[in-house]
Amino acid sequence: MMSYFPDVKRIQYEGRKSNNPLAFKYYNPSEVVLGKTMEEQLRFAVSYWHTFTLTGADPFGNPNMIRPWDGLSGIDLAKKRVEAAFEFMDKMGFQYFCFHDRDIAPEGDTLRETNNNLDIIVSMIEEYMKSTGKKLLWSTQNMFSNPRFVHGAATSPIADVFAYAAAQVKKGLEVALRLGAENYVFWGGREGYETLLNTDMKLELDNMARLLQMASEYADKIGFKGQLLIEPKPKEPTKHQYDFDAATTIAFLHTHGLADRFKLNLEANHATLAGHTFEHELYVARIHGMLGSVDANQGDPLLGWDTDEFPSDLYSTTLAMLQVLRNGGLHSGGLNFDSKVRRASMTPIDLFYGHILGMDSFARGFKVAAKLVEDKVLDDVVAERYQSYQSGIGQEIVSGNATFQSLEDYIIDKKVSVATSGRQELLLAKLNQYLLEAE
Amino acid sequence: MMSYFPDVKRIQYEGRKSNNPLAFKYYNPSEVVLGKTMEEQLRFAVSYWHTFTLTGADPFGNPNMIRPWDGLSGIDLAKKRVEAAFEFMDKMGFQYFCFHDRDIAPEGDTLRETNNNLDIIVSMIEEYMKSTGKKLLWSTQNMFSNPRFVHGAATSPIADVFAYAAAQVKKGLEVALRLGAENYVFWGGREGYETLLNTDMKLELDNMARLLQMASEYADKIGFKGQLLIEPKPKEPTKHQYDFDAATTIAFLHTHGLADRFKLNLEANHATLAGHTFEHELYVARIHGMLGSVDANQGDPLLGWDTDEFPSDLYSTTLAMLQVLRNGGLHSGGLNFDSKVRRASMTPIDLFYGHILGMDSFARGFKVAAKLVEDKVLDDVVAERYQSYQSGIGQEIVSGNATFQSLEDYIIDKKVSVATSGRQELLLAKLNQYLLEAE
Amino acid sequence: MMSYFPDVKRIQYEGRKSNNPLAFKYYNPSEVVLGKTMEEQLRFAVSYWHTFTLTGADPFGNPNMIRPWDGLSGIDLAKKRVEAAFEFMDKMGFQYFCFHDRDIAPEGDTLRETNNNLDIIVSMIEEYMKSTGKKLLWSTQNMFSNPRFVHGAATSPIADVFAYAAAQVKKGLEVALRLGAENYVFWGGREGYETLLNTDMKLELDNMARLLQMASEYADKIGFKGQLLIEPKPKEPTKHQYDFDAATTIAFLHTHGLADRFKLNLEANHATLAGHTFEHELYVARIHGMLGSVDANQGDPLLGWDTDEFPSDLYSTTLAMLQVLRNGGLHSGGLNFDSKVRRASMTPIDLFYGHILGMDSFARGFKVAAKLVEDKVLDDVVAERYQSYQSGIGQEIVSGNATFQSLEDYIIDKKVSVATSGRQELLLAKLNQYLLEAE
Amino acid sequence: MMSYFPDVKRIQYEGRKSNNPLAFKYYNPSEVVLGKTMEEQLRFAVSYWHTFTLTGADPFGNPNMIRPWDGLSGIDLAKKRVEAAFEFMDKMGFQYFCFHDRDIAPEGDTLRETNNNLDIIVSMIEEYMKSTGKKLLWSTQNMFSNPRFVHGAATSPIADVFAYAAAQVKKGLEVALRLGAENYVFWGGREGYETLLNTDMKLELDNMARLLQMASEYADKIGFKGQLLIEPKPKEPTKHQYDFDAATTIAFLHTHGLADRFKLNLEANHATLAGHTFEHELYVARIHGMLGSVDANQGDPLLGWDTDEFPSDLYSTTLAMLQVLRNGGLHSGGLNFDSKVRRASMTPIDLFYGHILGMDSFARGFKVAAKLVEDKVLDDVVAERYQSYQSGIGQEIVSGNATFQSLEDYIIDKKVSVATSGRQELLLAKLNQYLLEAE
Repeated sequence: MMSYFPDVKRIQYEGRKSNNPLAFKYYNPSEVVLGKTMEEQLRFAVSYWHTFTLTGADPFGNPNMIRPWDGLSGIDLAKKRVEAAFEFMDKMGFQYFCFHDRDIAPEGDTLRETNNNLDIIVSMIEEYMKSTGKKLLWSTQNMFSNPRFVHGAATSPIADVFAYAAAQVKKGLEVALRLGAENYVFWGGREGYETLLNTDMKLELDNMARLLQMASEYADKIGFKGQLLIEPKPKEPTKHQYDFDAATTIAFLHTHGLADRFKLNLEANHATLAGHTFEHELYVARIHGMLGSVDANQGDPLLGWDTDEFPSDLYSTTLAMLQVLRNGGLHSGGLNFDSKVRRASMTPIDLFYGHILGMDSFARGFKVAAKLVEDKVLDDVVAERYQSYQSGIGQEIVSGNATFQSLEDYIIDKKVSVATSGRQELLLAKLNQYLLEAE
Repeated sequence: MMSYFPDVKRIQYEGRKSNNPLAFKYYNPSEVVLGKTMEEQLRFAVSYWHTFTLTGADPFGNPNMIRPWDGLSGIDLAKKRVEAAFEFMDKMGFQYFCFHDRDIAPEGDTLRETNNNLDIIVSMIEEYMKSTGKKLLWSTQNMFSNPRFVHGAATSPIADVFAYAAAQVKKGLEVALRLGAENYVFWGGREGYETLLNTDMKLELDNMARLLQMASEYADKIGFKGQLLIEPKPKEPTKHQYDFDAATTIAFLHTHGLADRFKLNLEANHATLAGHTFEHELYVARIHGMLGSVDANQGDPLLGWDTDEFPSDLYSTTLAMLQVLRNGGLHSGGLNFDSKVRRASMTPIDLFYGHILGMDSFARGFKVAAKLVEDKVLDDVVAERYQSYQSGIGQEIVSGNATFQSLEDYIIDKKVSVATSGRQELLLAKLNQYLLEAE
Repeated sequence: MMSYFPDVKRIQYEGRKSNNPLAFKYYNPSEVVLGKTMEEQLRFAVSYWHTFTLTGADPFGNPNMIRPWDGLSGIDLAKKRVEAAFEFMDKMGFQYFCFHDRDIAPEGDTLRETNNNLDIIVSMIEEYMKSTGKKLLWSTQNMFSNPRFVHGAATSPIADVFAYAAAQVKKGLEVALRLGAENYVFWGGREGYETLLNTDMKLELDNMARLLQMASEYADKIGFKGQLLIEPKPKEPTKHQYDFDAATTIAFLHTHGLADRFKLNLEANHATLAGHTFEHELYVARIHGMLGSVDANQGDPLLGWDTDEFPSDLYSTTLAMLQVLRNGGLHSGGLNFDSKVRRASMTPIDLFYGHILGMDSFARGFKVAAKLVEDKVLDDVVAERYQSYQSGIGQEIVSGNATFQSLEDYIIDKKVSVATSGRQELLLAKLNQYLLEAE
Repeated sequence: MMSYFPDVKRIQYEGRKSNNPLAFKYYNPSEVVLGKTMEEQLRFAVSYWHTFTLTGADPFGNPNMIRPWDGLSGIDLAKKRVEAAFEFMDKMGFQYFCFHDRDIAPEGDTLRETNNNLDIIVSMIEEYMKSTGKKLLWSTQNMFSNPRFVHGAATSPIADVFAYAAAQVKKGLEVALRLGAENYVFWGGREGYETLLNTDMKLELDNMARLLQMASEYADKIGFKGQLLIEPKPKEPTKHQYDFDAATTIAFLHTHGLADRFKLNLEANHATLAGHTFEHELYVARIHGMLGSVDANQGDPLLGWDTDEFPSDLYSTTLAMLQVLRNGGLHSGGLNFDSKVRRASMTPIDLFYGHILGMDSFARGFKVAAKLVEDKVLDDVVAERYQSYQSGIGQEIVSGNATFQSLEDYIIDKKVSVATSGRQELLLAKLNQYLLEAE
C-alpha cells in the first residue's frame, strides 16, 4: 500500500532535551504514572474531521490545504482517507479515533443512499480496526452542515427535519454499536436560535429532549452499552445554542429526566466562549457525576470564535488533568484532539507537529497534576481551609442538625471577623514551581 | 417636616410631546392597557441602595455626591434617609420599594446590636408605610460588603460565617414578614470563588443549598407567604458567582430539591455580563415557571462590569415586557430599578431624571409589547413556523408516539430540503415599525 | 431580457403606517431634508459580494441559498450576476454599488488571464452603467480569499505575493478609473498576524505602507481623482489586523506620510469588534478630517465575529448620521450596505426585506439626527458645558497663552469642586423622545 | 525604629527546588545574564499605591485589610507608610519605587496646603533615599480620585479644573526633579468620556495635548531630564479613555507634535482590556521607538475590569521580556509592580508572597527569553521566513525601486501559490520546551 506520509517515521519519545521536532519530549506512552501507563491514562484520540477532511477554508478564504489523498471525490476519496487515517494513527501512536458520520462517507440523495455509502466505509474501517487494534473512542452525527438543518435538527420547526435527524441518529447508533464505540456524542451545532422573534423555545427544548429520549431507548434496545454524551457550546454557528455550558446542560437533562443516561463531553474552547475556564467546566461536571469525556483543544481568549487550536497552554492542561484525576480518571472517555492546524500551517507535516504539541502538552500537564495530587499540595490547603466544618457548629451545619434558631443562638453575640487569607498568590507561585520542576 | 427635594413637585404625565424634563412622556399611571392600569401592570419599585445610599465612589474615585440628608451618621442618618425615601417615592409616584437590611440601618458590633438598629428603622418604615400606603416589593440581606464575607457567606470556608449568615437571613425574613414584603431575594454576591486552587466547590454548593433550605423552612414556620427569589449574576465581585445565569440557577435548584419554593429575580445587566440578552434570561425563566421579578436596569455591552445604568434602550424594554406579558404579567414581582445615576450625574435632581427615563422607557416598551401581542405579530409567525407539529408525523413526534424506527420508515427515501426563511430581517423591520408607531 | 425577481415590483415609499413589507416606511428618496433629497443625503450603495455572490456557507454549514442566477459558472455566471445586480438596483432604487474585483469576475491561472476575465465583465458593467445611470461608489480588490494570500498580501513574507498584490491593485485602480469610481477602498483582511512568534511586524508595516504609497502615486499618474480609503477592522480572519481601528489607522498613516491621500471607510460591525461604538469611530475619524465613507451594517455585541447584519438599531443609525451631519455630509462617500441576510433567510425575497430594513433604519436615523441638529439639542448642551473655555482663564488656556506658572498662580489658593452634572440620563430621555417623535 | 514586618527576614534567592515560601526560586539578583546582573536587567519597582495604601475595598465590599501602620490618619499615617515602604523595599530587595502624589501625602483644602503636605513627606522620602540608596523609577499625579476630576482633568469641561491639573503636574515635576525620578508618568484615568452626547472630543483632545505640551516645556525649563511617559488604558473608570492603547496614543502624540518628548508606559492588564496581548503592545511601542517602561501585572481574560493581579503567567512574562530584550533592554524604564494582592489575601505576609510571585515570574520569563534570543530560536525563523526581501524583486520592493508597472511586468504571467507553512504549532512546542528546560 502506498504511504501518505512517506517522510515521517513512527513518532518516538526522545525526552525533554530532544531537538527532534518529530519526537515526543514529554509523552512517553509506556511510562507508568499513578499506577497506569500514560497511554492508558490519557487515552488520546485523533479527530477525523480536523485531520482528514479539513481544507483550510475560512469565512474569508478559499481552501488552501493540499493533502496526499486529494484528487478523488465521493466514495473513492472517503476510502483514501481511511487509509491515511490509519497510517496517521499508527505513526502518531494513537489508540483511538472519533468521527461524525459525514466525515467518513459522502451523502447521497436520500438517507437510504447515504446509509449505503456509510456502510461501505464502516466495513472498511471495521477491517482496519481488526487488523490494527485501533478503537473508536466515540462517534457522532453531523446534523448541522447540510442545508436541511438550517433551523436546527431536533429543534427544527419542520417536522420532517426532526424525522430525518432521528433516523440519522438511529443509524449513527447502529454504526457505533458495530464499531464498538465506547461513547456516543451529541453536539447540537444548530440546536439553538438565531432570533427569539420567531422562536418557540419551549417546543424546541421539548423536541430536543424527545430525540435524546428516543436515542437513549434505542441504544438500550440494540444493546449499545457506550456512554451517551452531550457536548455543550454556547454559540456559533447559532447566536445561542441551547447546550450553553455544563450547568445549562445539566439543568436541561434534569428538567427532562435524562440525567441518568447522559454525561458531558467538554471542550476547552467552548468553555472559553461561554466565559468559563476549562477547569471550571470540568469541575462542575465532575461534582455532578457528569464528566464523560474531553475535547482537547484551546481557544484564544481575545478572539470570539471557535479557533480549535491545538492545546499548548500548560496551565490549562495541568488544571484540566487535575480535575480528571479527581474524577478517578477518564473511565470510558478520552482526550480527543478536536483541534486543527492553523490555516497558515497548510503542509501535511504540520498535522504531526500539531498533534505532538497537543500530546506533549497534555502529558506534561498530567505529570504536573499527578505530582500536585501526590504531594497533596492543594488537597492540604483545601482541607485546612474548610476544617471548621469538621467539628462543632460547622459539623452541625453539614450534618443537617442546625436550624436558623440554633445558629442565631450561637452567633448573636459573637464578633465574627475574617482575616484568614485565601493565599492565591502563594498557590500560584507553587503552581509555577510544580509546572517547571515536576519530574 | 422638612423637604429634601423642595424644588421638585410630584411628577405628572404630560404626554409624548412635553418639553418638561420633570414630567412623564410615556408613563401614564392610570391609563388602562390590556385590562389594568399601567401602574398595576408595571409595579415599579425604587431601590433604596442606589437612590438613598450611593456616594459616587468608584474603584478610582472618591465619593462625589452631596445629598440633602448628608451631615449625620449612624442611626440619625438612617432616619433621615427614610424620610427622604418616602418623599422621593411620593414625588415619583412609586408604590413599591426594595432594600437590603444594611441599606436601611447601620451595623453594630454584634448581630444583636445590628438587629436592634434594624428594628428601630423598621418600626419607622412600618409607620411610614401605613400612613402612605407604600409597599415593600422585596427585601434582601447584604452578605457581601462586610469583611467577614470576604470568602462568601453561605459558601464561606469558615463555619461561623455560615452561622452568621443564617442568623442574618432569619432576621431578614422576620423583617420581611413584619413589613409585608411580597418577595424575598437572595443575591449571593460573594457566593462563588476567586480561584479554584483553594476551593471545594461541592461543599460550597451544598452549603449554599443548606442555607436556602433552612430559609425556606423558616419562612414557612413563621408564615411568610412571599415568593423566595434568587438573583443570578455571573461574576463581580467574585471571579465566578455560582448563580451564573437563569439556567445555572435552575440546575442548582433542581439538584438540591429547591425548585418548588424559589423563583428568579432577573436583572438586565447581569444577563449582559453572562453573555445573554435580557429577554433570553426572562424567556428561559418563564418556560421553566421561574420568572419571579425583574431588576430593571441596563449595562453597556462594551464594558465588562456592572454599570447598573437606568434603562433607556427601548428594544430591551419592549422585548423584556413581551416576556412578562407571555408570563401572564409580573404576579407578585415588579420592576425594581436596580439602577444608579452615573457618577457624573451627581446632583439630586438627576435622581429624578434617571427614574423618569427608566419609567418612561419601560412604559413605552410595555405599550409596544402589548400592541405586538394584541396584533399577534409574532404569535402568528411562530404558529405558522411550527405548524408541521400540529398534524401528521409532527403530531406523532410531540405526542410521543414516534420511535426511531417509525421515523426512519417515514423518511428513509424522502428528499428533505429546507428553504423556508426565518424572516429575521422582516421581523426586525416590523419591530421598528411597532416601536415607532404604537399608540 | 429575463427577470431575476419577477415577483417584485419597484419598491416605493408608502409611509410609516404601511403594512406592505415590500415598501419603504421611512425612506422617501425625493423628500428634501436639510436642503437636499434623502437620496442625495444618504447615497445608499448595494454590496455586490453579499447580495450577488453569497452562498449561505458558514464555518459549520454548506451553501444553502439558491439564487435565480444559479446553474452556470465562470464568466457565464458572472454575466448573469451583472444582469441580476442591475435589476436589483433598479427595483430597490439604488444609485450606487460597490464591488471587489473578484466578486464580479472569476480568476484565471495567471493575473493576465484574470485581468482578461475582469475586462469582459467591466465592459458589460460599463454599458449597464451608461444605460441606467447607476454609479460606482467604490471598488476594491480581494487580496484575502486566494490561498496565495494566506500570510497576507502587502504584508506577505513572500516577495512574489507582494508583487502580485501590487499588480492587482494597479489593475483595480485602472478599473476604478474606467468606471468612474468615486472612491477606492483598501481592506487588508489578511494584513496582520496569526502569531507574533514568526512575525516581523516592522517590515510588514513598512511593506504595507510601500504598497499604499505606490497606489497613491499610480492613482495620480493615471488621473484617478477618487478618494482613497482604508477600512479598519481589528481581527478576523487574522488574529490581529494592522488596521485595528480608526485611531490605529490614523497612527499608521501619519507614521508613513500617507495621511494626505487617504481617508477611512468605517464599518459598524468592525467598530464593535474593536470594542468601540460605531459613532465613536465616526467621531474620531471626523475630527481628524478622515471620515471618508461608511459601511452600513451592524454586529451582535454578544457575538465575537463579523455577522454583517443589516442595520436595524435606530440608536446606532441616529448617532452615526449625527456624525455624518457634523461632517458636512458624506461628500464623495456613501452608505454602503456591507450587510448580508442571515443564513436562515435564504430566499431571494429576503434580499429585498434586508435592504428595506437597512434603508428605512438609516432614513429614520437621519431624520432624527437632522431634527436633533436643527433644534440644537446636543449642541446647546455642549456649548454650555464647555463655556468656561470661552473667556478668562479658559480662554487663555485654549489660546496658548497660559503656562504652568500662570495657572498655578491662578489656582493655588482656590477651592475647586465640581458639582455640574453631565446629565447623561436627561440626554438619553431626550434622545428617546426625538427617536420616537421626530417627524 | 519599630519594624512593620518583624516576622519577615530579607528575602533571599534559594533556587528552584526551595520549599521556603519566603524565598526567591528564580530571581537571583546578582546572577549575570546577557552581560548584566538580573537586578540591573529587570529594574523591579514597588508601587506605593497598591502595597502601602490599599484597603481591600471593592465596589461591593468594605475595607478588609488591616495593616501595621493603621490607626493614624493624615500626615502621621503618611509618615508611617514611608517607614513601612522603605522597610518593605529593603526586605524584598527593591532598588526602585513609584508613586502618585496623593499616595504619599494627604490633600489639603487648597493646592497650596496640599503642596505643603507633599513637601513634608517628600523631604522625608528624600532622606530615606539618601540613606538607603533606593531610587524613584517614576512618579505621577493622581488626577482621577478627587471629585473635582469627575469629568476629567486636562479634558474637564471646566477651565478651573484644567488650571488645577496644570498646577498639580507642575508640582509633580518639581517633586520628580528633586527626588531624581528617572521617568514621569501620565495616566489619564478620567481623560475620556462617559457619553458622546455631551462631549466635545476635539476640544478635549486638544486640551489634553496642551497640558502635555506645557508639561514638556516646564520639564525642560526646570532641567528635569527624566523620560516623560504616557500610560494607555482603554476604559475604566471612564467608558472610553482617550489613551486607548499604544497605537491610539502614538496617533495622538503624532497629531499634536508630542512624539519626540513622550514614550509609553505599558501595562499588561490594560493591554488585555484593549483586546491585545501584552507582547503586542510592547512590540508596537518598540518598533515606533516608544517603549519606555512597563507596568508588570496581569488581568483575567474572562473578567472585564482591571484586576491588577501579580504576574504569574510565564508565557506572558517570557514574551514580554523578549520584546524588552529586542528593545536593547529597559533603558531608563523598569518593571513596576502595578499589582495588588487579591482582596481575599488580606494579611501583610501576602504582600511578600505577591511580590515574590511577580519577581520570580519575570525572572524566569527573562531567562527563557534570553535563551531564546541567545539560541536565535525565533530570529532564525523570521530571517528565513522573510528572506525573499533580501534579493531580487523583494529587494527592489524594500529599497523603493519597484513600481506598480515593474511589479506587474514581473508577475503578470507567473503562477503564484503559497504553501510555506507559518509553523505556529512547531513554534509553540519549542516555546514550551524553552519555558520548561531553560537553565
